[in-house]
Amino acid sequence: VVAQILQTGDADAPFLAQEREVSVLFADIVGFTTISEKLAPQKVAALLNRCFACITDVLFEHGGTLDKFIGDGLLAVFGAPMDQPDHAVRAVRAAIGMRRAMARLNLESAEPPLLLRIAVNSGTALAGDIGSPRRREYTVLGDVVNTASRIESTATEPGQIVISRATYDRLSRDMEATPLGQVTLRGRQVPVEIFEVEPEARPKTV
Amino acid sequence: VVAQILQTGDADAPFLAQEREVSVLFADIVGFTTISEKLAPQKVAALLNRCFACITDVLFEHGGTLDKFIGDGLLAVFGAPMDQPDHAVRAVRAAIGMRRAMARLNLESAEPPLLLRIAVNSGTALAGDIGSPRRREYTVLGDVVNTASRIESTATEPGQIVISRATYDRLSRDMEATPLGQVTLRGRQVPVEIFEVEPEARPKTV
Repeated sequence: VVAQILQTGDADAPFLAQEREVSVLFADIVGFTTISEKLAPQKVAALLNRCFACITDVLFEHGGTLDKFIGDGLLAVFGAPMDQPDHAVRAVRAAIGMRRAMARLNLESAEPPLLLRIAVNSGTALAGDIGSPRRREYTVLGDVVNTASRIESTATEPGQIVISRATYDRLSRDMEATPLGQVTLRGRQVPVEIFEVEPEARPKTV
Repeated sequence: VVAQILQTGDADAPFLAQEREVSVLFADIVGFTTISEKLAPQKVAALLNRCFACITDVLFEHGGTLDKFIGDGLLAVFGAPMDQPDHAVRAVRAAIGMRRAMARLNLESAEPPLLLRIAVNSGTALAGDIGSPRRREYTVLGDVVNTASRIESTATEPGQIVISRATYDRLSRDMEATPLGQVTLRGRQVPVEIFEVEPEARPKTV
């Protein structure tokens, strides 16, 4: 991204606030607090850093931008700061890739398996440098972000990837998702239609 | 803080994960998304930056550490990275100061008044540098943080400062708070006892 921005000559300009068409992705590690209660602080930090390294690698492969880590989760964005007309496709592919990467990490680890809960929502967000004079960072704001966060909290199955109708409508036809019906999100009047992206392949019991 | 760390010679060391006694403070601007729908993107960013500058000034005056901005809110911590035996007192005083600073900001502003919703919780958290190799930041993690976030979402009155029993018990006797009873937080079995810190003085109607 830096290289692209340098080419267009905007390197010194702050990211002025703009409305952008984006997909936002929230991911968090199910039950991480419970797991971490049994481990020494250093081990908890090492485990979390390993998970974050693993899922941000996938994020960057798909051209996503890390907005921030929040506790045992993260907020990522596609379609900002650079245009990505296929932001929804990228976000959902990144979600699937993150789930797969965590499954690989679990195979290598002696700890109990860690599963992600992921939500993707798409729409118009405000993106720009926000903060105080001492700390200002590029971020995305708005209803599309808040709704994504709330959709994530409706994902009850560990390993589940839940997307909104807005994201679903922007996917290519070969990407499959199962309707989960409508949910009324906390603090909202209008229900949101959600879909689940191809359920994770569960280990077969022999 | 930097000066203090330099004195103790830890400047080059990463913040290794430690368990610390902290108070965490969540604050967000009530209805900011709704307000921002009526403004141009540049105005929304400017307004939010002005609010954040105002409330982080208060935060730093009370010796708090800004963990991060999250949307139209922020997460702050007292008692980490440096010990602050009076972390709960500082956090609650900062909360009151933030509310007052926002009230002053509202007097100067032509926009509709902006009110904060604030929650404080205290206890043992994991603090340290967390993230991926490309982006690692000092943060606090754990149940005390998650609970604070959920307590904040129970604050229904704009301008309300809600604290947990754990914070209340650490306050000095001259600080007043009104019991609000017990609340069962989302995803929790055991209810949490909460208190409201001196309700905001409302403008008298003449």
